[in-house]
Order: sequence, then structure tokens, then C-alpha cells
Amino acid sequence: MSLDKILLGHGSGGILSQKLIDEVFVPAFSNSKLSPLNDQAVFELPKGKIAFSTDSFVVNPLFFPGGNIGDLAVNGTVNDVSMCGAVPKFLSCGFILEVGFEIEKLKTIVNSMTEAAQKAEIQIVTGDTKVVEQRGKEPQIFINTSGIGVLPEGIEISAEKAQEDDVIILSGSIAEHGITILSQREGFGFEIPFSSDTAPLNKIVAKLVSAIPEIHVMRDATRGGVASVLNEIAESSNVGIKIEEEKIPVKEAVQGACEMLGLEPVYVANEGCFVMILPAKHSEKALEILKNDSVSKDAVIFGKVVSEHKRMVLLRTFLGSERILQRLQGEQLPRIC
Amino acid sequence: MSLDKILLGHGSGGILSQKLIDEVFVPAFSNSKLSPLNDQAVFELPKGKIAFSTDSFVVNPLFFPGGNIGDLAVNGTVNDVSMCGAVPKFLSCGFILEVGFEIEKLKTIVNSMTEAAQKAEIQIVTGDTKVVEQRGKEPQIFINTSGIGVLPEGIEISAEKAQEDDVIILSGSIAEHGITILSQREGFGFEIPFSSDTAPLNKIVAKLVSAIPEIHVMRDATRGGVASVLNEIAESSNVGIKIEEEKIPVKEAVQGACEMLGLEPVYVANEGCFVMILPAKHSEKALEILKNDSVSKDAVIFGKVVSEHKRMVLLRTFLGSERILQRLQGEQLPRIC
Repeated sequence: MSLDKILLGHGSGGILSQKLIDEVFVPAFSNSKLSPLNDQAVFELPKGKIAFSTDSFVVNPLFFPGGNIGDLAVNGTVNDVSMCGAVPKFLSCGFILEVGFEIEKLKTIVNSMTEAAQKAEIQIVTGDTKVVEQRGKEPQIFINTSGIGVLPEGIEISAEKAQEDDVIILSGSIAEHGITILSQREGFGFEIPFSSDTAPLNKIVAKLVSAIPEIHVMRDATRGGVASVLNEIAESSNVGIKIEEEKIPVKEAVQGACEMLGLEPVYVANEGCFVMILPAKHSEKALEILKNDSVSKDAVIFGKVVSEHKRMVLLRTFLGSERILQRLQGEQLPRIC
Repeated sequence: MSLDKILLGHGSGGILSQKLIDEVFVPAFSNSKLSPLNDQAVFELPKGKIAFSTDSFVVNPLFFPGGNIGDLAVNGTVNDVSMCGAVPKFLSCGFILEVGFEIEKLKTIVNSMTEAAQKAEIQIVTGDTKVVEQRGKEPQIFINTSGIGVLPEGIEISAEKAQEDDVIILSGSIAEHGITILSQREGFGFEIPFSSDTAPLNKIVAKLVSAIPEIHVMRDATRGGVASVLNEIAESSNVGIKIEEEKIPVKEAVQGACEMLGLEPVYVANEGCFVMILPAKHSEKALEILKNDSVSKDAVIFGKVVSEHKRMVLLRTFLGSERILQRLQGEQLPRIC
């Protein structure tokens, strides 16, 4: 019986499950809410509205320049909770492990989750582990995180709140996460001078929301990239959106990789970058706050909300022509998060 | 392009993802909190303590007598949230689908989740779908559910609260879920005159908690069965536990199947059955409440908390001898939930 790899028994609810909890999860996630080891965490929340979000992470490869599936899983849900203006507080994590997965690798991932949780100042309070048979070449791990956040009073940030003449801000340069993942794939492998942008966005969001409660929309531009997020907003808010290609920050090496691969950066996934829509009169203040934080120092105004071409996104290209930017059609990059 | 099966593009965040959300998830889960289709649900909770729990479901086969992975995923988390005495309110669901999974099958599963949610009177408010490559013979689905419940004031039910002289109650007959799943497995396939006990326990728990706020411990006896749950409680509470084999309700056909397979019913998983520990003076009242509800009509007192053999569970057998009932060692039945 190999003790350095996951066995079916680690998911049994018996002695091996307990051993895994005691040796891997408790030392990493240890906090007063997790330690009673009940099947649920109990805690108090301040009065008010709650934001609740869930995300499963299946990224391949598990480790990549800039992070791994562990910090990605924490940052991803922290960001989803944050995007309505809420302050993320508590996370759950559900692991699905295949038999044969190396326990050392699991420890590395779990430690990255702990570090990411500390950085974002949230607590991982409850968890679950299931074990399934190995079916492919390499044993896999999937991680679900669900998060609870507290919404400050009076904040109503939502995809259907974009209004005519609103300004659209991008918090940083795009496409780094998706291209990083692709660069690590078997059959693609190429050197990159950048890395995934995976980062928690809750702190910059908290600064923005407290200074500018009038923000209308925030969305992190993950799967489907900036183009898909803008399309969703245009539809939800029943408005037109116009953006300018030359304003969109794309690192030269990222642009080069995109061209080589035939990908448009606006469709490539990000994990630490968001779109914000707000009344024009607040845009300079927002930019100032964004540029003052390292996670969003490259923030720019790159578009506006218009009354024409409702439910559509128009891109003004480098050449001055305009074209409709559709939502991502099929699958550009599988398993980027 | 086959339109009746899951494609990688269904996990892309683009048009196919939207189609899946619009055609499968929204019609089933539609409620005011889910419909804005933001990446998070926002809602108000009453003041007080919150219970938060997560569980991933990987059961094989997906469909079995008494239920499927969908209602199992809802009931499982409803029950985990309930076991501290909380009233479950909101659920998230995260789907991991393999390419090729039939969309009709997904609809059946999602509809079962809706029905289970209605039965338990909880709302599914936020979700996520990821698609991964098919790797085994049959395309798989994994479902994570996370749940939020509200704890009534003054209730403190927890695995470390068992006290000497407490009475131990079992809410119903055991081992039906695990044996049902096993009966459906390739290579095992046998006829059974019973089915999985998967059921929401929140309503009976609410009745118990409101009548008897002094309950010390409740635990649903899922993976690892009654024996593992009792061992966890004995350790957490630093007490001894003594149970009587002849009091444990096991249906004759279940007992027969267990004997045929060489399994002890106390180690087999349940999905609608729980252990409750409370001061002796409240036990008759508890039994009366339990027997009045169809989900727990076979409830019995089957043991007590003792000061001897701390952190151990002793079983008094049919023959009158006593033996230590250890926690489940390896894996009895893989993927039963």
C-alpha cells in the first residue's frame, strides 16, 4: 500500500480520510471555524446582504508560471464574490482526487490555497474530499470553491446596470492567463516572458466601492475574455458598447503569442483583470485609485456605453474601422481555469 | 457538431455556455436570485449565526433505485447544513461535465435537483459549469453543492458536545443507500426489494431542534456509516460510546445482501439517516417526534454515552459479547455519494 499517493480509501470517510484531513488539510487551513471538524462551519456574519458564488477549477496543467490550481481556485471565487462589491469572508473547498494523485503535490496545492487565502484575507472554513478512479494518463485533481461575502450597505453593482454614456474601464493588460496556460500544454510548449495574472481583486474592489459607491458594473474577464464579458453586459443592460482596440493594454509578448496562435486577446481568459462600468464623472477618480494599486496599475478607459446598436459590442480597430465583437463561439482554450 | 451532447465549448464562457445556461439551468433553477446571471447571487439573511457546508458528488452509477446524483447532491448538502441545527436556505451547484455527456441526461439530473430543492424548501441560487475531456468509457458528471443555513438562536449542536449518560438515537434503518449503489454496479448487479434512503432531513431536524434545543450532537451517517460517525463523535467529545447491535434497525433484505457481500451494515453509507445524541430526559420526546415523521418512523434508541473506554465505540453483539467497533479502515464501497 503506497502511502505517498491517493488511494480510494482516502475518500471513504474512515481512517484514511481522517489521516488525510489531519495531515494535509488541518495543518494548512487550521482556523477556529474549521477545527471542530463537523460537516459544516458555523460563524456569525454582520447584518446585511450576502453574496454567494461557486466555481470549479479543472485547469490543465495544474502548475503554471504565476500559480497553480490551488491559488487559482481561491482567487477565482474571491474575485467572483467581489465583483458585486461584496467583501469576501469565507470559502469552502471541495476536492475531487483521482487515485494515484501524489500527496506531496496535494500538499503544495493546499499550501498555495492557504497563502492565497491569507493574501486575500479570507478564511477557508469547510471542506470535503472525494476520491475517484484514475482514468487518464495522469491522476487529476479538481477543486470547487464556494465563497460568501458581505455587501456594504447601499451598493448595487450588477451586469444589468450599465447606462448610456457610462465609461468602461479595464483594470489591466489582458490575455496573460490563457496564453500562459496554453504555453505549457503538451504539443504547444513555448517560452514566455510573462506569467498568469492570477490575483485576488477584493482589495482594489473594496477601495473603489468605498470611494465610488455609484459604480454600475464590475466583471472579471475570465473564460471567454473581455469580449464575452462585454457582450453579457450589453445584453443584460440592453445597451450598446463601443470599445477601442488601441486602448486595450496587451503586453507585446502576449500580442506576439496571440498572433502566432491565431487568437484574439479579447477572447483569451484572464484571472486578475476586470471590467468596470461607471458614470463618466467618476472615471478619473476610479483610474487614480486603480493606478495606485499594483494589481491594476495599467488600468485604462477603453470604451463607453452607447444608445446605438443595443445588445452588441462594437470594436473600433487600429485601422479606424468598426466591427462587431461577438461572444466567443466555440471553445478557444479548454481548461484554462 | 452534435447538439445533444456536451462539447468543450459548453465550458468556454461563450455562446455555447450561454445556451446551456439558458436551455438547461435557468428553466430548472429559475428564481429571482439566480436570474440576473451574475457570477454571484446576492440575498439577505436574517441576523444570527450561519452554517456553511460543501460536498462533491461522484456517485457511480449516476442513476440508482431511489434517486440519482442530482437529488443526492441536493439532499447531501441540505443534510450537512442541517446537522448543526441550522435551517438550510441557499445552495450553489458546480457541475464538472465530460465531453460527450448527454444533455438529456443532464436535464434529468438538473430536474431532480429542482424537485429535491423544492421538497427541502431551499433555493439553488448560483452555479458554474466546467467541461473536461472524456477519459473513461462513459462520460462522467461530478456535482458540487455548497449550502448556507441559518442557525436558530441558542442552538449549539456539535460533534464535541456528547456527554456521559447521553442517549444515542438512530433515525431509521441503515445501509440501504450503500447496498443499493453496490447492487447496480457492473459485476455485482443483483435484485433488491429496497432502494436508497436519500432524503432531506432538514424538516425533521427543525421539529426536533424547536422542541428540544438541548440536543447535543447530530450527524448524518453517510460515508463510513454509523460506526465511523460514532467514532468521530467519541473522539471529538472525548467520551466512550456503547451501542447494542440488536437495537440497530436493518431491513432483512439489506442484512441478507450485507452477509452475501461480507459487509457490516454499520459501515455502509446512508443518505437519509442520522445519529442524535441528547440528555436522557429528552429522549422519549425526541423518539415521539421522530416516529411521527415518515423519514424517521423507524427511529430507535440504540446506545449511550459512557465514561469508560474513552474515544472508543463498543458494540454489544447479538450474542451478548462486546467488541470494539473501529472506524472504517480502507474503502468499503468507492463512490457511493
